[in-house]
Amino acid sequence: MSAPASAPAGAPVDAPVDAPVRAPADAPGSVRAVLWRRALGELLGTGMLVAVVVGSGIAAANLSPDDVGLQLLENSIATALGLAVLIAVLGPLSGAHFNPVVTLADWVLGRRDPAGPRLGDLGAYLAAQVSGGIGGALLANAMFGEPTTLATTQRVSGATLLAEVVATAGLVLVILGLLRAGCDTLVAPAVGAYIGAAYWFTSSTSFANPAVTVGRMFSDTFAGIAPGSVLPFVLAQLVGGAVGVGLAALLYPARSEAAARS
Amino acid sequence: MSAPASAPAGAPVDAPVDAPVRAPADAPGSVRAVLWRRALGELLGTGMLVAVVVGSGIAAANLSPDDVGLQLLENSIATALGLAVLIAVLGPLSGAHFNPVVTLADWVLGRRDPAGPRLGDLGAYLAAQVSGGIGGALLANAMFGEPTTLATTQRVSGATLLAEVVATAGLVLVILGLLRAGCDTLVAPAVGAYIGAAYWFTSSTSFANPAVTVGRMFSDTFAGIAPGSVLPFVLAQLVGGAVGVGLAALLYPARSEAAARS
Amino acid sequence: MSAPASAPAGAPVDAPVDAPVRAPADAPGSVRAVLWRRALGELLGTGMLVAVVVGSGIAAANLSPDDVGLQLLENSIATALGLAVLIAVLGPLSGAHFNPVVTLADWVLGRRDPAGPRLGDLGAYLAAQVSGGIGGALLANAMFGEPTTLATTQRVSGATLLAEVVATAGLVLVILGLLRAGCDTLVAPAVGAYIGAAYWFTSSTSFANPAVTVGRMFSDTFAGIAPGSVLPFVLAQLVGGAVGVGLAALLYPARSEAAARS
Amino acid sequence: MSAPASAPAGAPVDAPVDAPVRAPADAPGSVRAVLWRRALGELLGTGMLVAVVVGSGIAAANLSPDDVGLQLLENSIATALGLAVLIAVLGPLSGAHFNPVVTLADWVLGRRDPAGPRLGDLGAYLAAQVSGGIGGALLANAMFGEPTTLATTQRVSGATLLAEVVATAGLVLVILGLLRAGCDTLVAPAVGAYIGAAYWFTSSTSFANPAVTVGRMFSDTFAGIAPGSVLPFVLAQLVGGAVGVGLAALLYPARSEAAARS
Repeated sequence: MSAPASAPAGAPVDAPVDAPVRAPADAPGSVRAVLWRRALGELLGTGMLVAVVVGSGIAAANLSPDDVGLQLLENSIATALGLAVLIAVLGPLSGAHFNPVVTLADWVLGRRDPAGPRLGDLGAYLAAQVSGGIGGALLANAMFGEPTTLATTQRVSGATLLAEVVATAGLVLVILGLLRAGCDTLVAPAVGAYIGAAYWFTSSTSFANPAVTVGRMFSDTFAGIAPGSVLPFVLAQLVGGAVGVGLAALLYPARSEAAARS
Repeated sequence: MSAPASAPAGAPVDAPVDAPVRAPADAPGSVRAVLWRRALGELLGTGMLVAVVVGSGIAAANLSPDDVGLQLLENSIATALGLAVLIAVLGPLSGAHFNPVVTLADWVLGRRDPAGPRLGDLGAYLAAQVSGGIGGALLANAMFGEPTTLATTQRVSGATLLAEVVATAGLVLVILGLLRAGCDTLVAPAVGAYIGAAYWFTSSTSFANPAVTVGRMFSDTFAGIAPGSVLPFVLAQLVGGAVGVGLAALLYPARSEAAARS
Repeated sequence: MSAPASAPAGAPVDAPVDAPVRAPADAPGSVRAVLWRRALGELLGTGMLVAVVVGSGIAAANLSPDDVGLQLLENSIATALGLAVLIAVLGPLSGAHFNPVVTLADWVLGRRDPAGPRLGDLGAYLAAQVSGGIGGALLANAMFGEPTTLATTQRVSGATLLAEVVATAGLVLVILGLLRAGCDTLVAPAVGAYIGAAYWFTSSTSFANPAVTVGRMFSDTFAGIAPGSVLPFVLAQLVGGAVGVGLAALLYPARSEAAARS
Repeated sequence: MSAPASAPAGAPVDAPVDAPVRAPADAPGSVRAVLWRRALGELLGTGMLVAVVVGSGIAAANLSPDDVGLQLLENSIATALGLAVLIAVLGPLSGAHFNPVVTLADWVLGRRDPAGPRLGDLGAYLAAQVSGGIGGALLANAMFGEPTTLATTQRVSGATLLAEVVATAGLVLVILGLLRAGCDTLVAPAVGAYIGAAYWFTSSTSFANPAVTVGRMFSDTFAGIAPGSVLPFVLAQLVGGAVGVGLAALLYPARSEAAARS
């Protein structure tokens, strides 16, 4: 498809000039989109992510009834592919967090930076992510003719909570590590691949995302999670996020700190 | 293989100089290929796409008779890989639409642009895509020794029509979003990955393409669709295409509009 | 791993200066490696390719005895990944043909070019590819403790021969199309992905390579081919190669021809 | 996520200036991180790699009890994805060896280079890799509620030892070949893909890594290896590493040698 001649190379320009959410290396003049557009991107992205997770789970359970592993393989491949695409498409707009833990990490790390995210950004992002997550589950239910009811799958155990801590810490470390090394364009495929692997190397199948966890409460299907399991999962994810931020700070000291020491 | 010394870096140069279909960032002097070459690219690409979809469906159903999910996994992986390759190879020639919805979106968005697609381009592309789609189904039948008969698989329901709207809207948003962010080289792998995921997160297995839908009518095998289901599917795809164009306009305002406001 | 300070950025420099097999865009001074090194690269690459195809076929048949489709899925994923890696690693050395059809196409297209391949190159490449292909089958047999005997799987039919023509034509078109568009770095992943799809959309599982076909004669396992089927398969592959070269010439006219017309 | 303004484009700068482990092409002023940070990167990376291998093996065996091939497919896909991500994230920090054979090859090739690795680096890397490998197995056990006991799966045979030699030689050749051709950014996806294929084309499922082999001794699950098989596997891997270094030297002569001849 022809790129319209009027399409900007970077982000839209109807916003005050401040630091871009994810500045392309070759677009120093790009600016951050207005907040409502970025929040809409987060809503749409989180919604489609949950629609992919829940929808592919329903299809897998329907079509491969005899082997739960095969169901999870189908579910995890669809999620890895879909998530990578969503980040690639919406990253230039909103940063493609789709995840309150990532938004919180971004806010914590950037709060002393005058061009960093503000409290209003934080609130808008979290609200958009949770609304999107719920909407995505409802959309998946509708696309498969499934009723929307609360999920009944209890998922909490010591092992699964540890798994959520590890999965979320790893996710945050992947994102921060790639950004700090200047590998912005690798974030989309790397996060997709990481989640594809994390479905398998954790006993919880790696929710690793509070907004997605809340959304998955609204479909009593393969990917659902009972309401009673949501809060423990979210708490474990927040702990994991803190561990990830700490590891990133340890491994990749900021230039200012290093300069102060030299 | 050695690149012949005479091979152009971009598109062939035997055409009037106007805006390239997909201008490589480093080839400002490249020009659009003559229409018949681009239409041949669309015919070949759509044909091979349908051959991949139908052929891998036949192989999957023959070789994995006991699990429909496994059949769909095989079918979707082959399609995702094949589609990404076809777009990468034919994108520099014709834009690699392979899909009337994409061609229509291109025409709608570019019709006020003097260098945009003309009505003749539109007609040639649509004709090439539909012919290619049918030819691809016949080729797949021949490669597997299957007779060419009309498919008998009814696919219409409220859920599958909603799924086609969502799948096509997402496809258009992926393409337009990446092009507007200047990520042209990501279109091929992203569209392949998106369709690989959409096989699973939609109840319709994501046809999302009127030319492919018409083609798949001509093979009464795993990927076939009964003639009575074709028109509703195509209408849902057109609605989805319009939704995708609208979302892209909302999320990525054109520079000219933004400039007019500033 | 640290790149040794003495490692050249491109190809080795102990060879007469002529056009490189696949010149990196940013290495204008790179030169073609001496013939024996390039031939060794072809031998090693074709050998490892056949070892991957045959070895993963043995593993798949042993470990997934109940579903031939699952065996082919395992076999095709391993081959797609392995082939892409081999092309990426050995492409800068020998061009990573691993396939007499590709070498022949390269020779035909470049024979009028003073810097193109010479008849001696052609002979050395073909000999290396066939020897490597046989060696790879023997290595796979040894790695799995299988005896080396001639395969007994007859594969010839009208449908499979047509499939070999289509598969090989597509392979040649993928390679030539990407090279002519200047997308050299996409050849490795695209060829891997193409073959991964072609396992499924053809009834022959897409041999598409005379050297690999000869090699696979020497393992009476999942990927084997009976000696009586080899010559028809190779002839179909040569026809497919010619079709692919013709399609590429039609779609991507050389700059010199276009210039002559202008 | 916004890249913090203070994040360095390359490696941290609190270390003596010498040759970077893997210098980004666009960061000539980047320097190597202090040794403890690089060793921590190796520990974390090797640990997560073993957690992925062992954890996904446990999940696969639990969820797909009826088909060992399907278990290996799940295990190999998770490992390929996870390994590629770990190399991409930690490569800029430590070089992302995660493997004593790779560290030894790096030391052997760079020992005459004043900026190459020193004996202290070697010791720290090997200790970090082995500790990380063991820790990763324990973490996987904990995430799945499995007890930590020594594995009981005997894996030694002539065929599997040959397979380990081939798998490790191939791994070293992939890494050295890509680095010598200047394709540093391809190492992460290529090594992931290579190991994904090597699970299948070798009868040993391609351990190819002494630290991972030692770690996998500590989980009596799908990916475990009995202590009595560890030493033969490690010796075969060292032989394979030497073969890989020799092949790389043969195929890619260093510039200095070539210059001496000219």
